[in-house]
Amino acid sequence: MVVQTFQLKIADSEFAERKEKLRAYVEEMGVSGIILFDSDYILYFTGFKFIPTERPIAFAMTSQGNSGLYVPRLEFEHARANALIDRVDYYKEYPDKTHPAQGLLNMLSDMGLNDTVLADHDGYPWIFGYRGPALTESGYTVKSPRAFIEDQMAIKSEAEIRLLQESARWGNLAHQLLQRYTVVGATETVVEQRASNEATLAMMDAIGPIYRAQNTNGAFAGYRGQIGRNASIPHALANNITFQKGDVLVTGATAGVWGYVSELERTMFLGNPTDEQKRLFDHMLALQDLAIAAIEPGKPCSAVDTEVRQYFADHDLTEYWKHHSGHTIGIRYHEGPFLDVGDDTIIQPGMVFTVEPGLYAPGIGGFRHSDTVVVREDGVAFITYYPRDLDSLILPA
Amino acid sequence: MVVQTFQLKIADSEFAERKEKLRAYVEEMGVSGIILFDSDYILYFTGFKFIPTERPIAFAMTSQGNSGLYVPRLEFEHARANALIDRVDYYKEYPDKTHPAQGLLNMLSDMGLNDTVLADHDGYPWIFGYRGPALTESGYTVKSPRAFIEDQMAIKSEAEIRLLQESARWGNLAHQLLQRYTVVGATETVVEQRASNEATLAMMDAIGPIYRAQNTNGAFAGYRGQIGRNASIPHALANNITFQKGDVLVTGATAGVWGYVSELERTMFLGNPTDEQKRLFDHMLALQDLAIAAIEPGKPCSAVDTEVRQYFADHDLTEYWKHHSGHTIGIRYHEGPFLDVGDDTIIQPGMVFTVEPGLYAPGIGGFRHSDTVVVREDGVAFITYYPRDLDSLILPA
Repeated sequence: MVVQTFQLKIADSEFAERKEKLRAYVEEMGVSGIILFDSDYILYFTGFKFIPTERPIAFAMTSQGNSGLYVPRLEFEHARANALIDRVDYYKEYPDKTHPAQGLLNMLSDMGLNDTVLADHDGYPWIFGYRGPALTESGYTVKSPRAFIEDQMAIKSEAEIRLLQESARWGNLAHQLLQRYTVVGATETVVEQRASNEATLAMMDAIGPIYRAQNTNGAFAGYRGQIGRNASIPHALANNITFQKGDVLVTGATAGVWGYVSELERTMFLGNPTDEQKRLFDHMLALQDLAIAAIEPGKPCSAVDTEVRQYFADHDLTEYWKHHSGHTIGIRYHEGPFLDVGDDTIIQPGMVFTVEPGLYAPGIGGFRHSDTVVVREDGVAFITYYPRDLDSLILPA
Repeated sequence: MVVQTFQLKIADSEFAERKEKLRAYVEEMGVSGIILFDSDYILYFTGFKFIPTERPIAFAMTSQGNSGLYVPRLEFEHARANALIDRVDYYKEYPDKTHPAQGLLNMLSDMGLNDTVLADHDGYPWIFGYRGPALTESGYTVKSPRAFIEDQMAIKSEAEIRLLQESARWGNLAHQLLQRYTVVGATETVVEQRASNEATLAMMDAIGPIYRAQNTNGAFAGYRGQIGRNASIPHALANNITFQKGDVLVTGATAGVWGYVSELERTMFLGNPTDEQKRLFDHMLALQDLAIAAIEPGKPCSAVDTEVRQYFADHDLTEYWKHHSGHTIGIRYHEGPFLDVGDDTIIQPGMVFTVEPGLYAPGIGGFRHSDTVVVREDGVAFITYYPRDLDSLILPA
């Protein structure tokens, strides 16, 4: 007797709970309903994933919980099959002779959304060539629900944490292969392709036909240009660099699993580091240990970053500081709240943070590990699990 | 004597011209200046490419043409090195104890932007966890410059067209390899990876160290799930399907070259098509021929799509219609204006369109070619150049 089938996705009941929380907020705000255009928000509340284009897509829900999705004709079957929704209305095309904004207003009116509504944007944003009227131009008064939604999304369920753990598994494989294939004389692109491709194929075969990325294309590990002298630039855009002995490398690895992404980053050395590089690596590791230990439910996010900055100051390292200690992560690769001196959000169980204090020393290298951790009642649990110690991260050269 | 070095990018003088056009518009609108947050707009006007995150970045320019860029500390060197700009101001971090919105207001005020300004968004948008005040909450009156900017970006220079042609070259290679490696029993992912990787490596070696993608990661060719029965869904999200004899395939290929992307799509058959498939392919090809022939400077975009829809009606094919005939393309993979019955924008030399009328027959297949063409004084010139005829697109099976 089968009691359960392995499922790697968010259950319909969880989507229903998410929508109910949002509905209660709409009711509490005393408005007729809510309208969402953001594709990540629509994925979060309905399970419907789409690629934003000039063709507007909108989610609407009344304070009573009736929900509707407004899509172009060519997304209709896709939306019907995937979205957990009471109704799906469609328009023929954008811009067409009758602008799709008109059909959206018809659906909203038919559902009973009028006067004041919550909306994440005042009309569909002007992306990819779309042009159209704002909701306020059509008589609506608009209030933003973004703060509420961001707060809601920041607390992950056990199902979301499982997806992040699954993401970490394949990010870990990609990273292991990246480390193995990185040799003096190889190019960044060849190594990244090989590691990412093999990890992606392994993931697809291991998970099988139930796998859906929903965002990135499979597993990825790479350097994004943070190699050698460039490694002191935190977010360098990719170049195609040939590895040399003595390079300091800062990696990045992840995998998209049903819309969720983890983050794994490591500092590695091609050949033995210099004493100064070793010194900065040790400080970086101490900073990450310190930040991870500082994360506790009930404390403000700012407390973690304050401790980190104090360490920088105490050890005369402030000239190498460039960014805060971490961010939350989930459907988006950066989410709020942040481990930042200016973010007093209270840390709560279910929040998933990257922890990644970094040091950037021009001419010496960039030094950053990033791990993804989940806050539990009594502290934090690692989601990523790649070795963090120096010896494990020195590559033969 | 070297009179010119091969350059695959937009010249500084062209960025200056773009900014001057924008400045003249700001002056014409009688406002103190303009503020842009959109990363594509900032790339277009300054040459500075960045990955949008929770850390706000803004471009500002006065009606006299003084320009500034506002960036986080960790983008400062990158911005200084890349952006063609009079000043670069930075803030320490987001959110920090002093919110970065304050530093932006300081820079704007210092530059002399006050009262009414043009802005593409009312403050930095709330993406990736960013939260901050709207410009209107800080005393500004905001008007949108988006329509002007979109119109400006729609007319491509010869340098932009050369980048699109370069993109087409490598998209063509990726597509050639995709066709070669697609065999019965292989999986979509393996074939896509192999074709895309080899084309990317060839491009990087052929172009050499001057190559910058600035957007996508190299060259790409794939199916995005539009295989077999899924091929009747225009924008299916990727699955990992095993190729079978009889599959109808709809491809997509491109390459990012200094921020510019072309679009190449083909309908292919694994083994000989059925008579009905051949009939629909022939109609699709006739529709594309018709649409390409209809594109002429001075005509409205709508005229092209009207002719296409008339063909659908005349040949009793309307049940297979799902979308308009094409869109413009450049830095973004979809831009306006559109080849759509509702878009009366006048076609002008320098506009670059995709031409891609499609037929979608459930159970039979999807049928769509897409070519990228540029409008010239006397008609259109192909930018993509892959074979379009049926015989060239039947794969052995």
